[in-house]
Amino acid sequence: MLWFNCDYNEGAHPRILERLAQTNLEQTAGYGADPYCRQAEELIKDLCKAPQAQVHFLCGGTQTNLTVLAACSRPYQSILSPVTGHINVHETGAIEATGHRIEALPQTNGKITAAQIAQVCKEHWEDDNPEFAPQPRTVYISFPTEYGTLYTLKELKEIRRVCDENHLFLFIDGARLGYGLTAPGNDVTLPDVAALADVFYIGGTKIGALLGEAVVIPNLKLQKDFRYFMKQKGGILAKGRVLGIQFLTLFEDGLYLELAKHANDMAALIKTACKQAGFSFLYDSPTNQQFPILPNDLLANLEETYCFAHIKRMDKNHSAIRICTSWATRKEDVLQLTADLLKLAKEQDATHRVSFIQQ
Amino acid sequence: MLWFNCDYNEGAHPRILERLAQTNLEQTAGYGADPYCRQAEELIKDLCKAPQAQVHFLCGGTQTNLTVLAACSRPYQSILSPVTGHINVHETGAIEATGHRIEALPQTNGKITAAQIAQVCKEHWEDDNPEFAPQPRTVYISFPTEYGTLYTLKELKEIRRVCDENHLFLFIDGARLGYGLTAPGNDVTLPDVAALADVFYIGGTKIGALLGEAVVIPNLKLQKDFRYFMKQKGGILAKGRVLGIQFLTLFEDGLYLELAKHANDMAALIKTACKQAGFSFLYDSPTNQQFPILPNDLLANLEETYCFAHIKRMDKNHSAIRICTSWATRKEDVLQLTADLLKLAKEQDATHRVSFIQQ
Amino acid sequence: MLWFNCDYNEGAHPRILERLAQTNLEQTAGYGADPYCRQAEELIKDLCKAPQAQVHFLCGGTQTNLTVLAACSRPYQSILSPVTGHINVHETGAIEATGHRIEALPQTNGKITAAQIAQVCKEHWEDDNPEFAPQPRTVYISFPTEYGTLYTLKELKEIRRVCDENHLFLFIDGARLGYGLTAPGNDVTLPDVAALADVFYIGGTKIGALLGEAVVIPNLKLQKDFRYFMKQKGGILAKGRVLGIQFLTLFEDGLYLELAKHANDMAALIKTACKQAGFSFLYDSPTNQQFPILPNDLLANLEETYCFAHIKRMDKNHSAIRICTSWATRKEDVLQLTADLLKLAKEQDATHRVSFIQQ
Amino acid sequence: MLWFNCDYNEGAHPRILERLAQTNLEQTAGYGADPYCRQAEELIKDLCKAPQAQVHFLCGGTQTNLTVLAACSRPYQSILSPVTGHINVHETGAIEATGHRIEALPQTNGKITAAQIAQVCKEHWEDDNPEFAPQPRTVYISFPTEYGTLYTLKELKEIRRVCDENHLFLFIDGARLGYGLTAPGNDVTLPDVAALADVFYIGGTKIGALLGEAVVIPNLKLQKDFRYFMKQKGGILAKGRVLGIQFLTLFEDGLYLELAKHANDMAALIKTACKQAGFSFLYDSPTNQQFPILPNDLLANLEETYCFAHIKRMDKNHSAIRICTSWATRKEDVLQLTADLLKLAKEQDATHRVSFIQQ
Repeated sequence: MLWFNCDYNEGAHPRILERLAQTNLEQTAGYGADPYCRQAEELIKDLCKAPQAQVHFLCGGTQTNLTVLAACSRPYQSILSPVTGHINVHETGAIEATGHRIEALPQTNGKITAAQIAQVCKEHWEDDNPEFAPQPRTVYISFPTEYGTLYTLKELKEIRRVCDENHLFLFIDGARLGYGLTAPGNDVTLPDVAALADVFYIGGTKIGALLGEAVVIPNLKLQKDFRYFMKQKGGILAKGRVLGIQFLTLFEDGLYLELAKHANDMAALIKTACKQAGFSFLYDSPTNQQFPILPNDLLANLEETYCFAHIKRMDKNHSAIRICTSWATRKEDVLQLTADLLKLAKEQDATHRVSFIQQ
Repeated sequence: MLWFNCDYNEGAHPRILERLAQTNLEQTAGYGADPYCRQAEELIKDLCKAPQAQVHFLCGGTQTNLTVLAACSRPYQSILSPVTGHINVHETGAIEATGHRIEALPQTNGKITAAQIAQVCKEHWEDDNPEFAPQPRTVYISFPTEYGTLYTLKELKEIRRVCDENHLFLFIDGARLGYGLTAPGNDVTLPDVAALADVFYIGGTKIGALLGEAVVIPNLKLQKDFRYFMKQKGGILAKGRVLGIQFLTLFEDGLYLELAKHANDMAALIKTACKQAGFSFLYDSPTNQQFPILPNDLLANLEETYCFAHIKRMDKNHSAIRICTSWATRKEDVLQLTADLLKLAKEQDATHRVSFIQQ
Repeated sequence: MLWFNCDYNEGAHPRILERLAQTNLEQTAGYGADPYCRQAEELIKDLCKAPQAQVHFLCGGTQTNLTVLAACSRPYQSILSPVTGHINVHETGAIEATGHRIEALPQTNGKITAAQIAQVCKEHWEDDNPEFAPQPRTVYISFPTEYGTLYTLKELKEIRRVCDENHLFLFIDGARLGYGLTAPGNDVTLPDVAALADVFYIGGTKIGALLGEAVVIPNLKLQKDFRYFMKQKGGILAKGRVLGIQFLTLFEDGLYLELAKHANDMAALIKTACKQAGFSFLYDSPTNQQFPILPNDLLANLEETYCFAHIKRMDKNHSAIRICTSWATRKEDVLQLTADLLKLAKEQDATHRVSFIQQ
Repeated sequence: MLWFNCDYNEGAHPRILERLAQTNLEQTAGYGADPYCRQAEELIKDLCKAPQAQVHFLCGGTQTNLTVLAACSRPYQSILSPVTGHINVHETGAIEATGHRIEALPQTNGKITAAQIAQVCKEHWEDDNPEFAPQPRTVYISFPTEYGTLYTLKELKEIRRVCDENHLFLFIDGARLGYGLTAPGNDVTLPDVAALADVFYIGGTKIGALLGEAVVIPNLKLQKDFRYFMKQKGGILAKGRVLGIQFLTLFEDGLYLELAKHANDMAALIKTACKQAGFSFLYDSPTNQQFPILPNDLLANLEETYCFAHIKRMDKNHSAIRICTSWATRKEDVLQLTADLLKLAKEQDATHRVSFIQQ
């Protein structure tokens, strides 16, 4: 079987394993106070053009989200998120378990707008008794979104402006940040993200690391005492170097963006083949996740060889799936997949095909 | 500098790194559903002689403690812990942050007794309004303790009996379990631990792994829905295999206990030298942590070459320190340390020395 | 000004104040262990035909909701509520602050259906990784709803069946229970509520008491340790008799339902007048809350004399308001209001009027 | 039976009930926005000489403590309390349930010292990894303490200074504040309390009200958004006037202090009688709670007529009890009690008596 169901099916990029082996017997301080964490922090701050920022290393996405959002919020404050946000649908109430309400906003292509955020704040503050509802405090968005789509720089700037006007923090979940930064058509850079967000993270787990997310905190207010939050939530790794070494390896020679771009390129080949075969997409993603809508019988054939994630039953004959590529995806496997896909599509009776409008 | 301040100064045992490299490009399911996690689980259950148990893999100690204790407790229930318990002093209120009170009991050599536990329960249930105080529900102890000391099998059995009589869960923190199991004089086996505890964990971070703790849950009641707790607390690793592979490597050929025993042997050499030099100990530990009381001037001399953890100022001339060994401690370094220590002790004017009674 | 904006503008029914005065100097035990609380409990159990039930007295609605739902839930379990449920919109995240996620379901007339609940459960349990989302555990509905509407007995029985099939608790918020039980067309009795709900409460604050809600717990599982939850959430009143005496007074001679019926009758007069005047309603309520849609100029005129709650701007010329009656509403005031309303409606140019379809 | 076991055995002072009856049918806004709450707030601010303060009304002590301490703390911050503090022993982990750790300090006569507080802070900030333990943020003390004892003005000023030096809030639990302010020997005034504390409360429940605690917040930082905390914790009463009217009645003519002084006077009679009879005291209290140590047989005799609270078994023949007086305690009952006590003491064989050193 060839697995295209997610972007964390393999271990780490070999250079990471090599580096771990090379440094293995060096003795270092624990809990992130080692030289590798410090070097990785400096490197990331440089690349972000954010000398005032702090960088902290955590193990995984849910841990990062719940730690950052606890640091952003007083107990009565809420987090605004697209209804499809990872924190709202896929983390077992991890945010609520820290005591905070998520206000889920309707999304379009996985995104929310500055106008929606402004409207929520307006309604809150115009209420006769605003204290009878949680106070909006933080905006949570993902770049790329759960659907692989991207905010434009203009959209992000508008969201920033609305956040400033309403005294809100902006937290950008970058579990797949690299895929967004290297996507065709993207106009957002890493320094843009660092300039616009109060806090964001650079995902390692899904782009080449064994595990690890680098939290970048440009906003000084959120820096204070952040390590207390990390420790309390179980997020300070004793051998912090395991994270520092990985991020140092990913960032010192541009490996991170290189791996992300490779995955995007592989996804683009699949996207092109799906279009060629006449298939629609549930979302129009320029990144490493593709959401084509396939006839069920064709899908069944493909699934004898390939593994995908099922996303949505469109009608009795069609299903939307997610096809993911990663740093580890081999071009030969992609070419085999696209060839099989085109061959099967051709064989299929064209009259059975239905085109779905992209949503 | 040679570091003896803790047991997580290096990376992982080389066999772990090799195994990670060998399996690196295999595609596996995420979130602990891979074959390595399953094999490691089966192996650990076998070694525990607990076929009914569940085994889950988490990243670190605080994360494990807060996840397990959340699973043990309803909101109004408390955890009984020695006042020196890791959860009570060194986790930034992680347990309280999940809503639970820790009832800290006075300790002797880092340990609490069955009688103390029984007494707390008696007082709770005899109160006219027991509901005005948290209800005792879980006993938290560590094996070895924070002071490197060990419960005897008899002591653990008595604690178990009291737990049964009072409807309490027993959770054994085994962050350094291997050091306890292989200590001279220890009469507790892994199957004993699995038979006596409702839930415990086998620490990997401090005995040879990059990171990782294996939670073993013999009690069926605590097994139900445990993964919900793991996910909510940010404890399910996307690339769960990273943990599974490490524990498989540690347990399939007895490597875990071998590494622990090595560390204990190295610690014993240091202990012997300290005794020879006429020094007292803050605690009498048979495991990899030693707590000698040294004259400050001798200590200052040693610290030009060696790094220790300072534990307690005993008087103006003496300090108790912690000396730790680990899987990575080299015998030649230990011999150098003990030689230096004996040499310095000899040079020192004997009249300056004060003997401290062990506490 | 005459206030019709809510049902808690006055103090308590005079018989309650008299009873408090009569018993004032009696010495009783604290914390709800007094004879009045016990008598009130027995009386309520009798009226509910639920001899196995427990009855506890709390101060207010939010306190009751957060205490009951904490008792219903493990940390990873969620509460299903109509999106308009009080807990979802009007309690400052009180439920989330206890760590639980509310899954808000679309509502019709303030109500959710058995089918919706079943669907949520189906989707949860059919997911490949159910533990990545909170586990549905409790259904929260209100009787009457926030919109003054009522579930039929058939609807409640269907919800009960679905709860049984899916291992869910059913919690009925009865902050205005009496208004529902005495509404025209209602076919649900107090024993029905006690037979169908695992836990519910009988609101005193909004029907004649100074303060107080009586929590009835028919389900034995939820009875255990409930007072621990009450105490921990600050809900055990030192002078518990203040609540016991009030509920005893409200229930020993049928005063509670009498007061509720009076309020409903007064509301019906207002409803009839609104209909006569040709106005539509935002919701069709048979209880003490009415939601007519009035022309803004007419409303402005009325508001020189009467106080209402503004609910929704319908268009630039019309607004939906809430008119509330209570035990204290005087018939003469209602007749004056309806007369003014009809007079103003007549004066107004009929061509300006727009009829809104009930939602 | 005559009850002396606590200070909340009766209802409210009659003037409160009268005032509730007089105002009963007035229509007022809900949730504390009524004129009575506002008048009571202004009056209390005047009496506190704290024009910048806010005053809020809550129902009970545990509710007040958990709400105030949530407002004082970020999630990783702890509360320093005497080990005997009400929040530490008698509130079912209510504070921990909001996520915060209580650091319990050894007490003397129910009190802690400025030096102890300074020491805890020093140890925290001198640690190499302060973030591995909760950060001290708030000092919680009671005036009077659980043992009826009082801090002197000098002691309070020293605590204030240490709080200032260590960036700590000072919260004074005044559940029995009046008893302290009117005690013989006390040198602390209400304006002193308001000048020294960042937040404190004036207990109504235990001094003449049906229920109610008035939270006074002199510190502007803690004022912001306090009502969000109140609402989220279930602490905003719909008919807030019930609290406002009571505090207005208690404070507009000095009734509050008058009632407290009466109770202290009654307690002093009992204290004198106990001393006359040769009995020792567990604590030397100048307020309405007395803790005499009585021979068990004498106690058994007394308990045929009087109800006390048992505090501690001193040895096999002696017990310490708590005798409480209140606004409702009648002098004739006290005189009867003291007469009986002296008579029984006289009858008893003097050789059986043992004197206990005050602790």
